[in-house]
Amino acid sequence: MTTTQTDRTTVKRIGERGHYDRAVIDPIIDEALLCHVGTIEHGIPMVIPTLHARIGDHLILHGSPASRMLRSAKKAEICVTITLVDGFVLARSALHHSMNYRSVVILGQPETMTGPDKAAALDALVERLVPGRLPHLRAMTDEEVRATSVLRLPITEASAKVRTGPPVDDEEDYELPIWAGVLPIQTTYGPPITDPAMRSEVAVPEHVLGYRGPTGPSAGG
Amino acid sequence: MTTTQTDRTTVKRIGERGHYDRAVIDPIIDEALLCHVGTIEHGIPMVIPTLHARIGDHLILHGSPASRMLRSAKKAEICVTITLVDGFVLARSALHHSMNYRSVVILGQPETMTGPDKAAALDALVERLVPGRLPHLRAMTDEEVRATSVLRLPITEASAKVRTGPPVDDEEDYELPIWAGVLPIQTTYGPPITDPAMRSEVAVPEHVLGYRGPTGPSAGG
Repeated sequence: MTTTQTDRTTVKRIGERGHYDRAVIDPIIDEALLCHVGTIEHGIPMVIPTLHARIGDHLILHGSPASRMLRSAKKAEICVTITLVDGFVLARSALHHSMNYRSVVILGQPETMTGPDKAAALDALVERLVPGRLPHLRAMTDEEVRATSVLRLPITEASAKVRTGPPVDDEEDYELPIWAGVLPIQTTYGPPITDPAMRSEVAVPEHVLGYRGPTGPSAGG
Repeated sequence: MTTTQTDRTTVKRIGERGHYDRAVIDPIIDEALLCHVGTIEHGIPMVIPTLHARIGDHLILHGSPASRMLRSAKKAEICVTITLVDGFVLARSALHHSMNYRSVVILGQPETMTGPDKAAALDALVERLVPGRLPHLRAMTDEEVRATSVLRLPITEASAKVRTGPPVDDEEDYELPIWAGVLPIQTTYGPPITDPAMRSEVAVPEHVLGYRGPTGPSAGG
């Protein structure tokens, strides 16, 4: 998050500073519902939201082979940014207002996946976001797998940025009779809405009723 | 969101198609907690999360004058993407899984704000995210305003994309005894955490206790 002054932030960087702290980076990737992918199209930056999964040391992205974003991503370096928002930081002055957040930026050149790894990556996308769902579904057909582009980006040049804790105000402002603190932000789920096109009575399964958010990597991590 | 097949989506575009539907675009901008800004740095795309406000026909961005993102944004076209996630779309096959979402992409060249408009824009950033907060705070000093860079981007070349409703499955899959539907995703707030550094007893104010999310534009909209 852009902030206008020094914050009580922890900054961990991989790559530039040779500080490879996957213990910070991976849980942020795994908890996020989606990522934002930056590419360059005709000299102009383009940012598109998309779903992702992590399999071990790679971030998985997918889409239609016709997707402009994926076509650009196959040819040049991309930037994938993942942001979790944890709370509003309500300070005593406007300037020191901020957000508590956790974000990851990954840079690199993705590679196109093929073969059995590709099918496994598509399964991982569903199973990561909604754990327990995959066994309920019919298997993907070869045609479906062929009709999807899947890219993987090595999690090598990556950095995480985290802000936690209360506001940090100017010393003299602490005397002001202004309430200050953090207003937490959470993501919650449900209740499920059954498809009106259901043709038989099927109870809402536990993986939907008990859903508490995406989990970690579904394989290799 | 990248999806791999035809979805029941509504796509509204401004600019390319001359379809200027601010009635779709503005509420998405106003409801979002943050945006992702895409710039180009040394030929590589860079995507950074930041807070925003809308004042009438402009998106407001701010940050430290030292911010790399803001420095790039002053010199070239940027892409600002805003994404709201509304639900998991749980289909009968892995391929037709999707998200219900609302997103906006705005392209353009931002301009640097100065003078009274700049100070008003900074106030709008706080007041948009936490309505009712601003009157509780001490006024910003001229020095604080000078120490912050504020950019505004005209909401001219912008497009919105929205997916709503149940999954759209292959015709033959509707016969399968698989629960399908939508699992809604909401953002919730609280309970507030008072700054342990408070020096006097101040009750948690109503704008914090009763917080229900950002509102619309704070001026001119």
